[in-house]
Amino acid sequence: MCAQKNHPAAYTMIKMFYTGGTIGMQKNDDGVLVPKPNAFKDRIKKMPQLHNEEEAKKLKRIDESDFVLVNMDGKCKFIYNIEEYFPLLDSSNISPESWVQLARDIKKYYEHYDAFIILHGTDTLAYTASALSFMLINLEKPIILTGSMIPIFEVRTDATNNMVCSLILAGCYKIPEVAIFFGNKLYRGNRTTKTSADSLSAFDSINYPPLAVMDSLESVEYDNILDGVRNSNNFFIQDTLCNDVLVLPVYPGIKGETLRAILKAPIKGVVLQCFGAGNIPTRPDVIEALREAVQEKILIVRVSMCLKGAVSDLYEVGAILGKVGVVPGYDMTTEAALGKLCCVLGNALLTFDERCEIMKTNIRGELTDV
Amino acid sequence: MCAQKNHPAAYTMIKMFYTGGTIGMQKNDDGVLVPKPNAFKDRIKKMPQLHNEEEAKKLKRIDESDFVLVNMDGKCKFIYNIEEYFPLLDSSNISPESWVQLARDIKKYYEHYDAFIILHGTDTLAYTASALSFMLINLEKPIILTGSMIPIFEVRTDATNNMVCSLILAGCYKIPEVAIFFGNKLYRGNRTTKTSADSLSAFDSINYPPLAVMDSLESVEYDNILDGVRNSNNFFIQDTLCNDVLVLPVYPGIKGETLRAILKAPIKGVVLQCFGAGNIPTRPDVIEALREAVQEKILIVRVSMCLKGAVSDLYEVGAILGKVGVVPGYDMTTEAALGKLCCVLGNALLTFDERCEIMKTNIRGELTDV
Amino acid sequence: MCAQKNHPAAYTMIKMFYTGGTIGMQKNDDGVLVPKPNAFKDRIKKMPQLHNEEEAKKLKRIDESDFVLVNMDGKCKFIYNIEEYFPLLDSSNISPESWVQLARDIKKYYEHYDAFIILHGTDTLAYTASALSFMLINLEKPIILTGSMIPIFEVRTDATNNMVCSLILAGCYKIPEVAIFFGNKLYRGNRTTKTSADSLSAFDSINYPPLAVMDSLESVEYDNILDGVRNSNNFFIQDTLCNDVLVLPVYPGIKGETLRAILKAPIKGVVLQCFGAGNIPTRPDVIEALREAVQEKILIVRVSMCLKGAVSDLYEVGAILGKVGVVPGYDMTTEAALGKLCCVLGNALLTFDERCEIMKTNIRGELTDV
Amino acid sequence: MCAQKNHPAAYTMIKMFYTGGTIGMQKNDDGVLVPKPNAFKDRIKKMPQLHNEEEAKKLKRIDESDFVLVNMDGKCKFIYNIEEYFPLLDSSNISPESWVQLARDIKKYYEHYDAFIILHGTDTLAYTASALSFMLINLEKPIILTGSMIPIFEVRTDATNNMVCSLILAGCYKIPEVAIFFGNKLYRGNRTTKTSADSLSAFDSINYPPLAVMDSLESVEYDNILDGVRNSNNFFIQDTLCNDVLVLPVYPGIKGETLRAILKAPIKGVVLQCFGAGNIPTRPDVIEALREAVQEKILIVRVSMCLKGAVSDLYEVGAILGKVGVVPGYDMTTEAALGKLCCVLGNALLTFDERCEIMKTNIRGELTDV
Repeated sequence: MCAQKNHPAAYTMIKMFYTGGTIGMQKNDDGVLVPKPNAFKDRIKKMPQLHNEEEAKKLKRIDESDFVLVNMDGKCKFIYNIEEYFPLLDSSNISPESWVQLARDIKKYYEHYDAFIILHGTDTLAYTASALSFMLINLEKPIILTGSMIPIFEVRTDATNNMVCSLILAGCYKIPEVAIFFGNKLYRGNRTTKTSADSLSAFDSINYPPLAVMDSLESVEYDNILDGVRNSNNFFIQDTLCNDVLVLPVYPGIKGETLRAILKAPIKGVVLQCFGAGNIPTRPDVIEALREAVQEKILIVRVSMCLKGAVSDLYEVGAILGKVGVVPGYDMTTEAALGKLCCVLGNALLTFDERCEIMKTNIRGELTDV
Repeated sequence: MCAQKNHPAAYTMIKMFYTGGTIGMQKNDDGVLVPKPNAFKDRIKKMPQLHNEEEAKKLKRIDESDFVLVNMDGKCKFIYNIEEYFPLLDSSNISPESWVQLARDIKKYYEHYDAFIILHGTDTLAYTASALSFMLINLEKPIILTGSMIPIFEVRTDATNNMVCSLILAGCYKIPEVAIFFGNKLYRGNRTTKTSADSLSAFDSINYPPLAVMDSLESVEYDNILDGVRNSNNFFIQDTLCNDVLVLPVYPGIKGETLRAILKAPIKGVVLQCFGAGNIPTRPDVIEALREAVQEKILIVRVSMCLKGAVSDLYEVGAILGKVGVVPGYDMTTEAALGKLCCVLGNALLTFDERCEIMKTNIRGELTDV
Repeated sequence: MCAQKNHPAAYTMIKMFYTGGTIGMQKNDDGVLVPKPNAFKDRIKKMPQLHNEEEAKKLKRIDESDFVLVNMDGKCKFIYNIEEYFPLLDSSNISPESWVQLARDIKKYYEHYDAFIILHGTDTLAYTASALSFMLINLEKPIILTGSMIPIFEVRTDATNNMVCSLILAGCYKIPEVAIFFGNKLYRGNRTTKTSADSLSAFDSINYPPLAVMDSLESVEYDNILDGVRNSNNFFIQDTLCNDVLVLPVYPGIKGETLRAILKAPIKGVVLQCFGAGNIPTRPDVIEALREAVQEKILIVRVSMCLKGAVSDLYEVGAILGKVGVVPGYDMTTEAALGKLCCVLGNALLTFDERCEIMKTNIRGELTDV
Repeated sequence: MCAQKNHPAAYTMIKMFYTGGTIGMQKNDDGVLVPKPNAFKDRIKKMPQLHNEEEAKKLKRIDESDFVLVNMDGKCKFIYNIEEYFPLLDSSNISPESWVQLARDIKKYYEHYDAFIILHGTDTLAYTASALSFMLINLEKPIILTGSMIPIFEVRTDATNNMVCSLILAGCYKIPEVAIFFGNKLYRGNRTTKTSADSLSAFDSINYPPLAVMDSLESVEYDNILDGVRNSNNFFIQDTLCNDVLVLPVYPGIKGETLRAILKAPIKGVVLQCFGAGNIPTRPDVIEALREAVQEKILIVRVSMCLKGAVSDLYEVGAILGKVGVVPGYDMTTEAALGKLCCVLGNALLTFDERCEIMKTNIRGELTDV
């Protein structure tokens, strides 16, 4: 554990970034939920499930902005510290720039904390987790993203449980991954999608089992978790991302002409969402438009628009698209493919072919190749 | 029941179109699944679950291409007839032209049959069902689309059950809807999405309960089924569709510049897939690009990219998009929104404002307005 | 709302009985969970999700033992009051005497409160809820039983959410039933079974849909909820129960001899758990043993040992058992059948035949007759 | 593969016992389902999914009662042979005698076939599978039990799929277990319970994952399957079973007096179904009645009445029951505990203490000890 300041070594040190999102919102006079700056930490301070005042007092020299939690049998003890972003980020407006900010903040505190928790709006949470999984290199500490569907200021809220569980998982278990906690499950970040706009279990990772389930017992499935690296000195971040990307679904009647117009946009990479096992209309105009784009060095990776399943190389369409140069993304989510694309395109040292190769290779547990 | 030819009135008459798809494929010498023309009906003829030869012989005057099925207690009796499309349609290449062909074929036989079954590849099945639900007007007979994940020629196959159940539901129950049968459930067509590329239960209608469940007992939920119309003379089809449409998801980092380039494509309508409850990045460049498109009379309808949930009008983003003229699609699937868009844009009698109004109005049970 | 003491009418008044169970346990020095008397209320007092100190202070004249909760938009406001049982009841040792105590306590406070919440151990919670549903007559107020799998004193706990949701459902909705809240769902008490010994969602009501689901939104399904009665003056309780009952499952190889020995026990009623749709071995020795028992006025009601499904009257076995005088319980749970049996046998005014008739009749929404 | 008769070695040889059950029933004139002897094989002969007449003809020397099946790519080829029981067994009346008959029939044919399939009524199917798993010793071949909720003679039936999948799993995979196939899943027999009286997916093995899932692809989970033994010569059966057993659930209000009367029945073993994690009422009269029974050498094993979960040794009640001599069955199903009890009590070579020891030890994958 991080021997930080004067804290007893028995305490795990956790850094929490409150970046924005529903979790910290309150209703304004019009009844609309809006973020309320500088209120979050005060609320937490008063919640015995999130801060043990008694224990805090025993630890005389901790900062006032430190929160302390100890579970019933005393085996899980941690001190955490909340850094509120200013301004608070709106989930819909999260962008690659936000990812860079987060990666840099993690880098900044990496040596001083044992684990990191990011409180984030739910709309783009899976995109952020996916991108971070590729931006953080040689990660050996838990990075858990969570949030809530109901604000922590409300009487009934999923925020408390999401925060407590994230703290326990980050603080008491070895999970060297970028993960998402929601609805009593911990998921690999780059495998997760927001599947529901209104359920408390808003996320799922259909093509990969959960990393942990918080039921009566806490069951962490180490077989599903990535092996971390040994030497924390090796941790570094990629903070150059390419933003000239596009998500493009096929649909019945899509025309080569339309496709060509779209691919003329100022872009360098495309996540092509295909039918079922990776199929697209194979009319010559469509195929031709894709071929032209690839020839102009637009990196096109195809994923399935089905929640469950993978793009396959085996079928006829796969062969055709392979010849054209469209790269198979297997069972990657759109979110993972997008984050990975921003990363590989943002890495100036790579050639086009190397980028294509990386896109179809499993580098962070994000895809199952066949 | 249709008093057709010389058939006893006790038999329901069902027309089945075999349009293509995995259901009728066989492996070629390379081990690849390919459609095999003119083999489907011979296979069916030999399967006692799909054709009762004994009963057929009793009905002396039926055609050789007629299939007969009678359940154990004799209460459900029907004669069906399979029309194989030539050429067989590849599911990935289904287009609005295919929908027109299907609608016209249904119209052609509408008076002579009690129900229709369409065997279809699974990749675009939900798109076809959605489009047909809008193209068939004053429908009072069941139109059930089904298919299979494993060919009917294989030893283990879901084709038999999907066909038998579709026949029973179409033949023995009053379900005046375009519906999809798959995985022992009947779904409203324009509420259904292919959620899995590899499961036998490949479809789901997350925002609307099933119309029927085929368990030990057959339970048809009439409360969930549309009321049909009274007078079959009123049945007609809209066979003019506009194909100048686009499906466009938002994603973190989407740029106004890119959006503007895309919306310059030769299109008249867009299904905008938004985050969660209908959110999009609200940076000025993005909003401005959308405003310009609407001003150029591009009809933009927004839906949620989450499988479960609805686009809401209530939040701030909803208000902004409302002012810009982007139309809320509530809990419509992308498939339904696309089919509906092709229809309303294809109806030359409607003004732009009328089209916008229809897009956000429930006309075939496709959305829940609030 | 109950105009009690000096409370403003806008507040719903809720009486909560803390009877015992895991929810209030703490670990003793051996690490074993034990109930800790007189600690529960102090904990609640400190939890802002369960008590709003600020609001409480505004209501000057409330008792010190009163807890106050107000939701974010101020529409749901209630004052509740916790009565701790002494001694605390161990869930495994709950008996019909405990049910009588609870019924009497509800009766005692019935006029003075708008709703009641019973905190109870989970092992026998469904039995207690079932029994109470039959003992409380002309109920028009919500009685919600809940508990937790993890103590409220633990950092991570399901107790907070179960209590908050029960309070909101009891205080803000019209649910004149004995119900169970657990795992974000409200179930009809006499339809519920504890299906898991270790899951936070430990309960389910397989043969009846939930009464409410607490997701992002609170959705109360009034169609599933019993109509209450109009006149609260009519509320009364049956506090005479017969305890001479037995739960008896059949199994392959069960012998008439064994059955006869069992039915010689000093009992007046039996819940016979049958296979599937109500089948039992039909060997003459088995049937004869049952016939003899019925002739000695032992009331035997049969239910299914399958979680899902109902005992049917239609099959041959049903006919045989009908002749013998064994009463069909349709889709009643064992818990409901047992509680109902204790009630009807405990009502001295009823004849044997009337008791049999009531057992197979739906009186509190506990069974679906056919 | 078994080099039997003159069959080409490429064919797997499967023996199928049709013992009775819904799968082979037909409606009689009263509309009641009754078994129809000598009709089953004729039906199968006509179903191309269950018998490939063309392939059969090529294999000139096979018996007339042999059925042949070859999958599309020719990799899975088998010949099977159906032996119909006379009289057909009624599922409700299955008893330990029936289990002995089945074990002996398997023994009789064990050397001559590669795998065995038992068609069985569903009510007691899980009991039979459990018992067989303990009676068959050193098993190295698949024994798959299946059946159906709808007869194979009905137009819509689950029988075809259940049979085809059982044949493929038994014939093409190495699964040296007694397993149950139902609802597209293969379960370990002694882990399975009939959970639904009316669903096509009537079975589940809540405390153990499926051995295989038959989805679009066939996924056999070898990690979940027992290792077989090496030398088939070692295969033998235990065909002495003790039938003096009882299944006894606890319930609120159970009295020592009643318990004592029950335990006076002529029995040698009891499966005690407890609350939750293995709790029972701990009143002195109850504990005393159990202690007396154990002292009279009645073997009492306790299991949980919850579908999910295990009896634990850790709690106070566990300690009390341990002292009394009640044996923990951990997460065994009632069905498994009963079959195992019949076996250990039927083995005359074992002492009482050895029997107790075996009951709480995992010997066929039936329990997870802790």
